[in-house]
Amino acid sequence: MEAHSGLSAKIVEEAGFKGIWASGLAISATLGVRDCNEASWTQVLDAVEFMRDASTLPILLDGDSGFGDFNIVRRLILKLEQRGINGVCIEDKLYPKRNSFIECDQKVCDADSFTGKIKAAKDTQKDNDFCVVARLEGFIVGLPFEQVMERAHMYADAGADAILVHSKRTDAEQILAFTDIWDRPTPLVVVPTTYNSTPTDVFAKAGVSLAIWANHNLRTSITAMQDTCRQIYQAQSTLKASENIASVKEVFRLTDMEELAAAEKHYLSGSGAE
Amino acid sequence: MEAHSGLSAKIVEEAGFKGIWASGLAISATLGVRDCNEASWTQVLDAVEFMRDASTLPILLDGDSGFGDFNIVRRLILKLEQRGINGVCIEDKLYPKRNSFIECDQKVCDADSFTGKIKAAKDTQKDNDFCVVARLEGFIVGLPFEQVMERAHMYADAGADAILVHSKRTDAEQILAFTDIWDRPTPLVVVPTTYNSTPTDVFAKAGVSLAIWANHNLRTSITAMQDTCRQIYQAQSTLKASENIASVKEVFRLTDMEELAAAEKHYLSGSGAE
Amino acid sequence: MEAHSGLSAKIVEEAGFKGIWASGLAISATLGVRDCNEASWTQVLDAVEFMRDASTLPILLDGDSGFGDFNIVRRLILKLEQRGINGVCIEDKLYPKRNSFIECDQKVCDADSFTGKIKAAKDTQKDNDFCVVARLEGFIVGLPFEQVMERAHMYADAGADAILVHSKRTDAEQILAFTDIWDRPTPLVVVPTTYNSTPTDVFAKAGVSLAIWANHNLRTSITAMQDTCRQIYQAQSTLKASENIASVKEVFRLTDMEELAAAEKHYLSGSGAE
Amino acid sequence: MEAHSGLSAKIVEEAGFKGIWASGLAISATLGVRDCNEASWTQVLDAVEFMRDASTLPILLDGDSGFGDFNIVRRLILKLEQRGINGVCIEDKLYPKRNSFIECDQKVCDADSFTGKIKAAKDTQKDNDFCVVARLEGFIVGLPFEQVMERAHMYADAGADAILVHSKRTDAEQILAFTDIWDRPTPLVVVPTTYNSTPTDVFAKAGVSLAIWANHNLRTSITAMQDTCRQIYQAQSTLKASENIASVKEVFRLTDMEELAAAEKHYLSGSGAE
Repeated sequence: MEAHSGLSAKIVEEAGFKGIWASGLAISATLGVRDCNEASWTQVLDAVEFMRDASTLPILLDGDSGFGDFNIVRRLILKLEQRGINGVCIEDKLYPKRNSFIECDQKVCDADSFTGKIKAAKDTQKDNDFCVVARLEGFIVGLPFEQVMERAHMYADAGADAILVHSKRTDAEQILAFTDIWDRPTPLVVVPTTYNSTPTDVFAKAGVSLAIWANHNLRTSITAMQDTCRQIYQAQSTLKASENIASVKEVFRLTDMEELAAAEKHYLSGSGAE
Repeated sequence: MEAHSGLSAKIVEEAGFKGIWASGLAISATLGVRDCNEASWTQVLDAVEFMRDASTLPILLDGDSGFGDFNIVRRLILKLEQRGINGVCIEDKLYPKRNSFIECDQKVCDADSFTGKIKAAKDTQKDNDFCVVARLEGFIVGLPFEQVMERAHMYADAGADAILVHSKRTDAEQILAFTDIWDRPTPLVVVPTTYNSTPTDVFAKAGVSLAIWANHNLRTSITAMQDTCRQIYQAQSTLKASENIASVKEVFRLTDMEELAAAEKHYLSGSGAE
Repeated sequence: MEAHSGLSAKIVEEAGFKGIWASGLAISATLGVRDCNEASWTQVLDAVEFMRDASTLPILLDGDSGFGDFNIVRRLILKLEQRGINGVCIEDKLYPKRNSFIECDQKVCDADSFTGKIKAAKDTQKDNDFCVVARLEGFIVGLPFEQVMERAHMYADAGADAILVHSKRTDAEQILAFTDIWDRPTPLVVVPTTYNSTPTDVFAKAGVSLAIWANHNLRTSITAMQDTCRQIYQAQSTLKASENIASVKEVFRLTDMEELAAAEKHYLSGSGAE
Repeated sequence: MEAHSGLSAKIVEEAGFKGIWASGLAISATLGVRDCNEASWTQVLDAVEFMRDASTLPILLDGDSGFGDFNIVRRLILKLEQRGINGVCIEDKLYPKRNSFIECDQKVCDADSFTGKIKAAKDTQKDNDFCVVARLEGFIVGLPFEQVMERAHMYADAGADAILVHSKRTDAEQILAFTDIWDRPTPLVVVPTTYNSTPTDVFAKAGVSLAIWANHNLRTSITAMQDTCRQIYQAQSTLKASENIASVKEVFRLTDMEELAAAEKHYLSGSGAE
């Protein structure tokens, strides 16, 4: 499940999900910038570090196209492991990337240079459990099916721990055509944003290992804030708006204020000055 | 109206509000940390910079107790003005502050040292329109009414552009007792979080210049994310959840993706490689 | 004159120079990373912001190849102007760039995409005095003279405020061949690092407007630290090493500690607690 | 030996020293700000992270007075361990601290609150080898000897891994009076900046475990930059100045550019595009 902040990461964990998708779209939209690498890679790193501290779940960072060449990818892996992030997904597009759902200058990168990034990532990681997911953007930019499949094999050969097949169709045709043929042990990942009318177990039966709900915490918070703003602006009062939203106490519970009160008793002397 | 991110700042602007309260509680809770200066002052600065870029509204930063002494306040003012932030509110508590609504080690600072901070802030600002709001925490920690009032006069004397009277009561008694006596031109600000059952025009009639809706974007987004997470987790599908939340297109609209597409046509040659 | 930190910027100013070259090589080497965009563009921004605060001189940032496409350049300009930086130099190489003096994968970018960056930069700046310098890397990668000249004209046409002609030869032949032909009002900039045996007035007479001493504060501090470390390590004492280095008092003078002592008297009450 | 940047950390390692003192004075002066917590604690963290990446030596961070209360200290420890820093030294002064050698508002904090910080630090660390050094500022602010000694015992009792006895005298009298009495296994650390005429083996014989050369890389680089700036400014040429300073090649060696060239051959395909 997508998260984009420490707070949303905590909420994802409490809801029972097994892992966090640190979405590039959601992180950048929350910052107020476009999902086109307008936030620098270290600004993304800062965001995901707060997510790490707020949740114990595995976190897979949406690493866009790797924020540059193989060498930037190496620095990224170093920094992610220092911060306890568990994996990164990189896609075979040029830097700066464009969000896959917009009508912009969408270009896949050279497949060889992308395998170089995957190898560089795998060679850099120190923790064997760190995961590098290779994301296929071929369907997004309109590459022929065979080329997308060929790239998938190249990326698996290069050491990718999983292949994310991305599609912007409103049906699952591209995805299922792909899973139908894929016969390697490298697991498959899908992101059913546009084609979410296909039941999830269809993908499970097709051999998909992981489905990512990619941006729904972002989107629901937008609607909620728009509604609440509208309501408060009209009423010029928060009385009614406060009825259906989390209490201030709930905010404190989410950041575990109780632990702080207990810690003060433990670590602060009676005299109390700093 | 409270905002805590570039995204929420944009939403506040679109809703028609005249200004943004960059809430310390909301910024820190969004990061996943406690409203006790767990985020460093430069991390808060990073957050408010994204808010600046995403909105044209005046932004008043909740500057807690100033993140240190008068000298840190001077650096803060320098950095806020560079980033185009329009004002800061500082409160007469010790650093690291504790959120005013929690049962923790709440202490006001020496009044003289606080007037030093106000003077330092006013002497540092280069833009005459920059505002320094002095927040009274006396009612929060239980100071006698006279002492709170005396501090208000000292802070106004020191050059504060406005006085924020804070109260955690569920009625407006402390606030109205204060406004009843206050007869100086320095404007008053209130934060009706706990005492929001009092109609806003009561404060207007009592001479209050500004009411801050201090944390409701944060709180509504918490509820929304908790509900959506629960729904998606149970359904193992986003189909139903997607019905009532912002579309991906709305995310793009909020970050003005159209401008980027137009700019690409303008600045990218036909050949297109970076 | 090159600077790479607040401290070196202050020293450059005190020495009498008219402006500061915020060198990408020097900033990255000081951080301990390679001059190949291993530091993110916001990390570079942080470095140059400290330089701004420490010096009143005009600062020209070495902006490498612009840290991405025209859109990243636009964000860069926005951020530089917020921080009071006076100009940026961008070079016609791909991102991530390679330092011009190393035997690595050196590639110029498409000339049209680079003119797009220049136009985007000029359209974005709000202060008319902000300067965008276009740096020619053609000689570095071995382009024919005519192509380098043609690019210079394209960049001037696109609005560049100056053209930086870069060369890694140990003589000034390429530079002087260029200045000999250049007949436009757009001023020329040179970086005599490898060809510094040519007297500076040769360039002045050839019509060059600005010479950049590009990395000598970095290099002299390296030698000094290596020597001092060796000496202290051998002596296991700082007694001798301390004789020829700045005193602690000089460190305080450079950061104007006296002003702080005076400010404490002004802003701190007698009671003194925070 | 002091370091203040990735570059200086690398130089310290190459000189043979066994560990790095990440000096607060040196880090802040390099940034161009005062050693009075003008840099936020996360800005200090950024500096020390670059040092970590550039050197394999143990790094002890000069953590000033802990940047706030016990709770900020807990966050600091968490962040330092994530980044692989090996220890932190905290001093018993108020936040924001003042450099110990300046005539400013110098105040020690309450001893009990400081033991709370030490306990909080030790309880927070996950790696048993992480070190928390407690620095006595009593001699700096003029506390009686007995009170300084009493604090030392309290800090050792609280779990400090070492006691740093600080003095600003030009002789070693205070230090040696202290070591003469100290009979606990908790090791002692000294910083012979002002009293460096006392031979180092005097301290060794007195039972001191560690001497810190606290700011000499900073100070030597200041002198070097001032000299080189003066020379280049007068000559308007770098020819003579370049003779006695590190070559550009040496800069490349220090950041291991050779490894990058080799990696490019390994990870970049012949086709070479990003």
